[in-house]
Amino acid sequence: MALIGILGGMGPLATVDFMDKVVRLTQASRDQDHLPMIVANLPHIDDRSSAIIDHGADPLPALLDGIDLLNRNHVGLIAIPCNSAHHWYEPMRARSAAPVLHIAQTCVAAVPRTARRVALLATGGALVSGFYQQALTELDIEPVVPDAAMQPLVRDCIREVKAGDLDAAAAHLEAALAMLAEQGIGTALMACTEIPLAARRIGKPPVTLIDSTLELARATVRYACERGWNRPQ
Amino acid sequence: MALIGILGGMGPLATVDFMDKVVRLTQASRDQDHLPMIVANLPHIDDRSSAIIDHGADPLPALLDGIDLLNRNHVGLIAIPCNSAHHWYEPMRARSAAPVLHIAQTCVAAVPRTARRVALLATGGALVSGFYQQALTELDIEPVVPDAAMQPLVRDCIREVKAGDLDAAAAHLEAALAMLAEQGIGTALMACTEIPLAARRIGKPPVTLIDSTLELARATVRYACERGWNRPQ
Repeated sequence: MALIGILGGMGPLATVDFMDKVVRLTQASRDQDHLPMIVANLPHIDDRSSAIIDHGADPLPALLDGIDLLNRNHVGLIAIPCNSAHHWYEPMRARSAAPVLHIAQTCVAAVPRTARRVALLATGGALVSGFYQQALTELDIEPVVPDAAMQPLVRDCIREVKAGDLDAAAAHLEAALAMLAEQGIGTALMACTEIPLAARRIGKPPVTLIDSTLELARATVRYACERGWNRPQ
Repeated sequence: MALIGILGGMGPLATVDFMDKVVRLTQASRDQDHLPMIVANLPHIDDRSSAIIDHGADPLPALLDGIDLLNRNHVGLIAIPCNSAHHWYEPMRARSAAPVLHIAQTCVAAVPRTARRVALLATGGALVSGFYQQALTELDIEPVVPDAAMQPLVRDCIREVKAGDLDAAAAHLEAALAMLAEQGIGTALMACTEIPLAARRIGKPPVTLIDSTLELARATVRYACERGWNRPQ
C-alpha cells in the first residue's frame, strides 16, 4: 500500500489544516475510502525565516532527517505544508526516494489566467529566497512584494497563528488586505501556510486569496487518488 | 528526542480533530514550543464495530501493524483517537514498547463527581464490547446505554461524520440529545471520536457532554510536557 508522507510541524496548526483539507477533498463515504498518510510533525526544526534572513541555525539537517524518516516508512509521495521550507526544496528532493511536491508550483498554477499583478503574503524568509517571485515571473505574472508598512502586518499575522491567537492574526491580516485593496491589487497568494487559518476568520476579504495549503492538498489528493492509494488491494 | 505516536485514521477527521486539540492545549508562542508527533493515519484498518458485532474482518492485524510502525519510529507514547479500537487495547498494549493511553480511562476520569447516571454515545461495537460500562461501574456511576429508538441516531451521526457531512451528523446528534434530556439524563460521554465534530455544530446542547477526544488529548499533552518533550535538548 502506498502512503502519503507529510513533513509537518512548521507550524503544527498549519499541518492540521493541511490534513483537514486532504481529508475533506477525498471522495469518501466511510473510513476505508480515505487516503493513508504518515505525518512527521516536527515542530523543533529551526526557524526557516531566521536562517534565510538572519543567518539563524540551519534547518536543513532536521529537514533531511524528516525526509529520511518518511522514506524509511515507505511513503510514495511527500508534501511539505510550509512554504519557507521550500527554500531547501532541491536538497530535500535530491535526498528523497519518493517524489516531493513543490508548494509554490501547485499554488501559482491556481492563479487566474487574467491576473497580471499578484501580491505575495509570505514570511520575510520566503520573500528573500525568491522562489515565489520566480514561479510567478515564469507565468508572466508580476509579483508584488509588500512594502515596509505592510510586511510587519503579515509577519505578525503568521506569528499569532503559531502562538494560537487566531483572532489577533485575523486582525493583522485584515489590515494588510485593506492596504492591498487600496493599492488596486486584486489577487494575493497566501504563500505561508499559517495565513489561511487567519483568513478563515475574515468574512469577505477585499482581494481574491489563493491558498497554498489548499492547492498543495489538491495536488496531493489528485496524485494519490490517480494511483488508487484510496483503494488498496 | 521523544515523540508522541498517534495511531489514527479511524476516522481521519477524528484524527485531525485530536491533533488540533493536542496543538491547542500546548502552551506555545512559536513552532519550537510544540510537541513532536508521528501520526500513522491508516483509514484502511477494517471496521471495528462490524468486527465486534457482525463477525466482520478482524482489524487486529492492521492495528498491530500500526503499533509496530509507531514503535519502529521510536515514539515514547501512543494515543489512539478511536474508542472502538480499544476493544483490542490489551493486545495492542502488550505488543507496544511505548505505553499506550486508554481513551476510556482518560474520558471517565473527566465525569463530574456528582454524576450518578451517564449516557454512552458510542458505536454499537463499543457498546457491545462493554469497556466503557466497566470503567463507569468501577467509579460507581451507572452507564446508560441508548435504547433501540436512540442508537440509530448515534450510529447515523457517526456515519455522516465519516462521510464528511457534519450538518447531517449534527442533526442526528441533536435528536439523540433531546431524547436523553427527556429521559432526565444530565451527562453523556461522547465515547466515539466522530461525535465531537458533530457536537461543535450544536449551539447549546441540553446535556453536559464529555469529549473523549479532548480528554485523550489532555492526557497526551500532560504526559509529554511532564517529560519535557516540548523542550528537547
